[in-house]
Amino acid sequence: MAGEFAFIDWIRKQQKSGGIVAVPAGDDLAVLDWPTGELLLVGVDQVMDGVHFDSAVHSPADIGRKVMNRNLSDCAAMACLPAAAVATVALPRSVSMDYAKELYLGMKEAGEKYGCALVGGDTGSWDGKLVMTVSILGRSAGIRPVLRSGAKAGDTIYVTGPLGGSILGRHLRFEPRIELARELAGRGVANAMIDVSDGLSRDLGHICRESVLGAVIDAERIPVHADAIELAARTGRPAIQHALHDGEDHELIVVGASGLGATLVEIGRMVAGEGIMLRTGGREERLKAQGWEHGFATR
Amino acid sequence: MAGEFAFIDWIRKQQKSGGIVAVPAGDDLAVLDWPTGELLLVGVDQVMDGVHFDSAVHSPADIGRKVMNRNLSDCAAMACLPAAAVATVALPRSVSMDYAKELYLGMKEAGEKYGCALVGGDTGSWDGKLVMTVSILGRSAGIRPVLRSGAKAGDTIYVTGPLGGSILGRHLRFEPRIELARELAGRGVANAMIDVSDGLSRDLGHICRESVLGAVIDAERIPVHADAIELAARTGRPAIQHALHDGEDHELIVVGASGLGATLVEIGRMVAGEGIMLRTGGREERLKAQGWEHGFATR
Repeated sequence: MAGEFAFIDWIRKQQKSGGIVAVPAGDDLAVLDWPTGELLLVGVDQVMDGVHFDSAVHSPADIGRKVMNRNLSDCAAMACLPAAAVATVALPRSVSMDYAKELYLGMKEAGEKYGCALVGGDTGSWDGKLVMTVSILGRSAGIRPVLRSGAKAGDTIYVTGPLGGSILGRHLRFEPRIELARELAGRGVANAMIDVSDGLSRDLGHICRESVLGAVIDAERIPVHADAIELAARTGRPAIQHALHDGEDHELIVVGASGLGATLVEIGRMVAGEGIMLRTGGREERLKAQGWEHGFATR
Repeated sequence: MAGEFAFIDWIRKQQKSGGIVAVPAGDDLAVLDWPTGELLLVGVDQVMDGVHFDSAVHSPADIGRKVMNRNLSDCAAMACLPAAAVATVALPRSVSMDYAKELYLGMKEAGEKYGCALVGGDTGSWDGKLVMTVSILGRSAGIRPVLRSGAKAGDTIYVTGPLGGSILGRHLRFEPRIELARELAGRGVANAMIDVSDGLSRDLGHICRESVLGAVIDAERIPVHADAIELAARTGRPAIQHALHDGEDHELIVVGASGLGATLVEIGRMVAGEGIMLRTGGREERLKAQGWEHGFATR
C-alpha cells in the first residue's frame, strides 16, 4: 500500500530551492532568506468539505486551487506580492494517492501563477472529511500594505467586478486581483481595500468599522453578475440581493480617490457616521450584513 | 446565538501589536516588520480528532497547547526562535463558544511562553470533527539553522531525554527544547537535529537519509521512559521497542561533537553507509523504522 511517506517524498520532488527559498520542504521547517527592508504579511485560510466545496462534486484540482486562491486574494486585498506558502491536508482514509497528488498540484499551480512557492506542509489521513489549509507569506516589495482602516470621509467606493451568485461555480474559478491591487496601491490612490469573501454588505462593513466611518452605496450602480441573475431565477430573491450579500466573489472593494478609471466600478462614497446606507431610487435604507456566518451551538 | 464573528471579535482583543507585529489580526493579513538580516523559518503542523488527540477525553486547552507545541518543537529542531504564528480551527457545529475560547487560549499561552505571538487565523464550523493547524514563523536570531543533512561520519548521536510511551499523556504535555537547542547550535556543536515526532527509528532515519550516512546505536544506552515501561506491561512488547518506535516524544535527536555534557544522552555514532544498526549485547541488527505511518486507500 502506498503510504504517507511516499506521498511526502513525491511532494519534495515538486519543491525546489531558489529565489528567497534557501532550504525547501524536507527539514523540520523551510528556510527563507527574507528580502531586506520588506514587510512580511502573513495569514491563513482553510477549506472544509461541505462548507467551501463538495468533494462529491468538485475535482481535487479545483479544491486545491481554491484554498490557494483564497490566500492569494488576501494578498491582493493588502496589495502585497505572494512569496511563499505552507499547506496542510487532512485526508479521508478512503482517498487514493492520485487524489492527494491532484489536490497538491491544484494548490501548487495556483500559487506558481503568482510566484508563490509551496515550501512546506503537513499531511495526515483520518476518519473524517477533507480539510485543507494554506498559510501564505506576502512581501511588501516597495508598496505599503493597504489596510481596512485607511478610508477617509468623502472617499469613493469601488468594486473590481460584478458580484453575486458565485455558488454557481465562480467560487472555484476566481482570479485573485493582485496586479490591479498593486497597480492602484503603487499609485497611492487606494486608501482601504478588502476582498469580497463574506459578501459586499459584510465586507464593506469591515472597512466602515475599521475606518470608523459609514458608507452610502447606490443599488443601481452595483454590478450584478449574470450568475446572480441566474441564481435569482432559482431562489426567487431579487438578483441585487445576491450581489449585495453572496460571498466568495473575491473581487476587491477599493476605497480611495475619485475617478480611478474604467476597470473599477464606482458604487458609493464613505461618509461620517457608521454602517452602510443603501440608496434605491430616492430612498435610503440601512443595509444589514447578511453574508453567511458560521454558528456555534448555544448549549 | 453567539456566532463566528463574535468569536473573531473576542480573538482580536487577545492579539496586540508590538515587537515585530506592525498590524495584528483584523485585516486580510497581519503585517510583520521582519528583523533585518535574519533568516525566516516557516512550517505548519495540524492535529486531528481521533489521530493526535481524542476530543472525548482531552481538554480543549490541552489540544490547543499540543498543536502550538508541535510547531515550537520544530523550531527547537532547527535551533530558531519562534516569532509569530497563524492558526486555523475547523469546529464541529456542536461546540460552544467557551470551548472554542479554551482551544484558542491553550494555543496562545503555549506560544507566549516562548515569545511567539498569534497574529491571525481562520475559524469555521462544519459537520465534521475538530481539526486545528498552526503555521509558525521562526527567526534565526544570530544562529544558523541546524538541518537534518549536516551530520558527519564519526559524529556522536544524542537524545535530549527518555523516550517511549508518550501516548500515556506526555504527547500533550511535552516542552519544546528550544533553549537547549539554541545553546548547542550557538556553540556550533550541533551538526544535525530533528525532534522525535514519528519515533526514534524513523526520525534518526531521516537524519541518515538527508546526511547520506548510516548510524549505529546501542540498545543499552537508549533512555527508556517510565511510560514506556508502564506501556510495555500493557502491550506485552519490550519497553525498548516503545522507546525505539513510539512517536510524539518531542525530545531532540542531536548529532555532533563528542562529549556534549550531562544534559544529553549519548546513544550511538554516525557511520558511512545507510540505515540504522541496533547493537544489543554483542549483536548488531538492522533497525527498521516502525514509527506510525498514515495510510492511503489503494483503490
